[in-house]
Amino acid sequence: MKAAVWHDIKDVRIEQIEEPVVSSSQIKVKVEWTGICGSDLHAYAHGLSKEAHPISGQKPPITLGHEFSGTIVELGEDVSGHQVGERVAIEPLIYCGECYACKRGYYNQCNQVGFVGLNRDGGFAEYVVVDENMVHVLPDNVSFEEGALVEPAAVSFYAVRESKLKAGDSVAIFGAGPIGLLTLLSAKAAGATQMIVVDLSEERLKKAKELGATTIINGSRDDIAATILQLTNGGVNVAYEAAGVQPTMTNAVASVRQGGQVMAIAVYSKPVSIDMGQIMFKAADITSTLAYRHIFPEVIDMIATGRLDVKQVITKKIQLDDLIDQGFNQLTNDVKQAKILVKPTNN
Amino acid sequence: MKAAVWHDIKDVRIEQIEEPVVSSSQIKVKVEWTGICGSDLHAYAHGLSKEAHPISGQKPPITLGHEFSGTIVELGEDVSGHQVGERVAIEPLIYCGECYACKRGYYNQCNQVGFVGLNRDGGFAEYVVVDENMVHVLPDNVSFEEGALVEPAAVSFYAVRESKLKAGDSVAIFGAGPIGLLTLLSAKAAGATQMIVVDLSEERLKKAKELGATTIINGSRDDIAATILQLTNGGVNVAYEAAGVQPTMTNAVASVRQGGQVMAIAVYSKPVSIDMGQIMFKAADITSTLAYRHIFPEVIDMIATGRLDVKQVITKKIQLDDLIDQGFNQLTNDVKQAKILVKPTNN
Ligand SMILES: [Zn+2]
Ligand SMILES: [Zn+2]
Ligand SMILES: [Zn+2]
Ligand SMILES: [Zn+2]
Repeated sequence: MKAAVWHDIKDVRIEQIEEPVVSSSQIKVKVEWTGICGSDLHAYAHGLSKEAHPISGQKPPITLGHEFSGTIVELGEDVSGHQVGERVAIEPLIYCGECYACKRGYYNQCNQVGFVGLNRDGGFAEYVVVDENMVHVLPDNVSFEEGALVEPAAVSFYAVRESKLKAGDSVAIFGAGPIGLLTLLSAKAAGATQMIVVDLSEERLKKAKELGATTIINGSRDDIAATILQLTNGGVNVAYEAAGVQPTMTNAVASVRQGGQVMAIAVYSKPVSIDMGQIMFKAADITSTLAYRHIFPEVIDMIATGRLDVKQVITKKIQLDDLIDQGFNQLTNDVKQAKILVKPTNN
Repeated sequence: MKAAVWHDIKDVRIEQIEEPVVSSSQIKVKVEWTGICGSDLHAYAHGLSKEAHPISGQKPPITLGHEFSGTIVELGEDVSGHQVGERVAIEPLIYCGECYACKRGYYNQCNQVGFVGLNRDGGFAEYVVVDENMVHVLPDNVSFEEGALVEPAAVSFYAVRESKLKAGDSVAIFGAGPIGLLTLLSAKAAGATQMIVVDLSEERLKKAKELGATTIINGSRDDIAATILQLTNGGVNVAYEAAGVQPTMTNAVASVRQGGQVMAIAVYSKPVSIDMGQIMFKAADITSTLAYRHIFPEVIDMIATGRLDVKQVITKKIQLDDLIDQGFNQLTNDVKQAKILVKPTNN
């Protein structure tokens, strides 16, 4: 079968590999759509660990892709909760099940946490085998395209649920990439009223406005925090930091009100500097989440009932053969792009 | 009357000033004991604002001292809830009563918050006038010395209450000065089991051990976080950061377990660098508190019932005339000193 296989930095090959074989508790899925994530771009540009993952046992070459939907085509002999033909979204976490976090059900905080598509062969392929308990059925009114968006939507929706946001609150979102936009949709679905989005790109801000931002602010302005404090009469309840750099973190801390919160959703390439005096004076807190847990069914429900219109973040659909040029390279160079979906099969 | 008056940096004078006069809603207190706080040392060494405080209207010269107990000697004409002769501790916050925070009862987060003893004449004097609602009666079995410790104990006890600590949890406390020691006592009173204290001074650590620390670690070691992770099988639930410098914050972040918290109680002279990757991976949070609110009665109860043996942190008692040499200078130079109490009257 065809797959997009990471061999090394800047060396992701669209090539023929063996079809995967199900073990007794696994399910084989024919992939329908797979989204490109920032972490795929990061793996392409900056690399993956060359070590074997302690749980999956796999090391590169590895097929990328962790945001995917598909159809069940085969069940391992011990699988009883699913049927061939079911339309599904895949929760791509890999965890040990035995550590402090896993024992408490916090599998996203497993001390050996990994991802299908980064630490084991993933969804940029015609077929994937996945563990039975990570397969979530899609209702008929959720398309395969939306199914491929359940994973990134879960990141945002989980961060919003774990944040202090209550209905009626105001929020600021720093960064209007896919995660920022999905956070905007999630905050809106959770009852946020004022929703202020900050980004350097006017095109991304236009998209944020279409998705419900009440105010958009260009990130190049030097009065961002002051503007937010004024618009909200003293600051937002929650600032979601989805950009991962010092200026946005600084503005996020400065933009929250007394008792407010900075929820970081980004990955930071280096430490950030925090003015603890502001945290003290406002009794604010700074926190973060990693991925999600126990939330795919709820996200699928939110999509099915029209509360999270995730398809709005799709800006392009491509074939697997075009993954590098029209996928990775375009996402890197064209800020208009939000989520690009990839069709791994030619039918 | 005699008072210790801040005129300028390194210029605190023990001098004669006018006795204060009560307004209609104020109470005049004859001061019994006043503790020396780190912020008094900071005012002495680094200065106070020269501007008039927006609520008190006072600018320097200002009498220092915000940790004090005393006896009521006179009531303003509208005061009905107190009696002359009552033994009291004073809650020294100044707030507007009208801002976002004040309206919600969060008076410690008032956007113009100030302190008696820093922004209005305080307790290093024979007499102070204070607002009626900031006066808290001491039961007979709480001494005036303990009464002077209610304020710093409230800082620590409030931080512990606002933290995620639950009975049975493990804690690490960075810094074994008066606030660190009072945090140790508060965490113990709140049911913490493992209580690990880190400080550079072996003498302070010895004191921490006497007060109930289960493990003491010298802050010069380079394996502090690793040791704490091992002792606690994966990290403490809450790390209290009472030192206010980069190395202790770095170790605090590294020492908490999944879902843990760093509660900063210190004042930071500059921004700190935070590795957000650890915060994300552990879904930990970093927060802080400023002073306290609505907690003096509970702290007095904890002292009266023997749950907070605050007098253990007193290391010395001096006369007001000796405030600079035997107070400020000794605290700066002698790490054995924790809390020094000052007697403002010569009887
Ligand atoms: Zn992703
Ligand atoms: Zn685990
Ligand atoms: Zn103080
Ligand atoms: Zn106020």
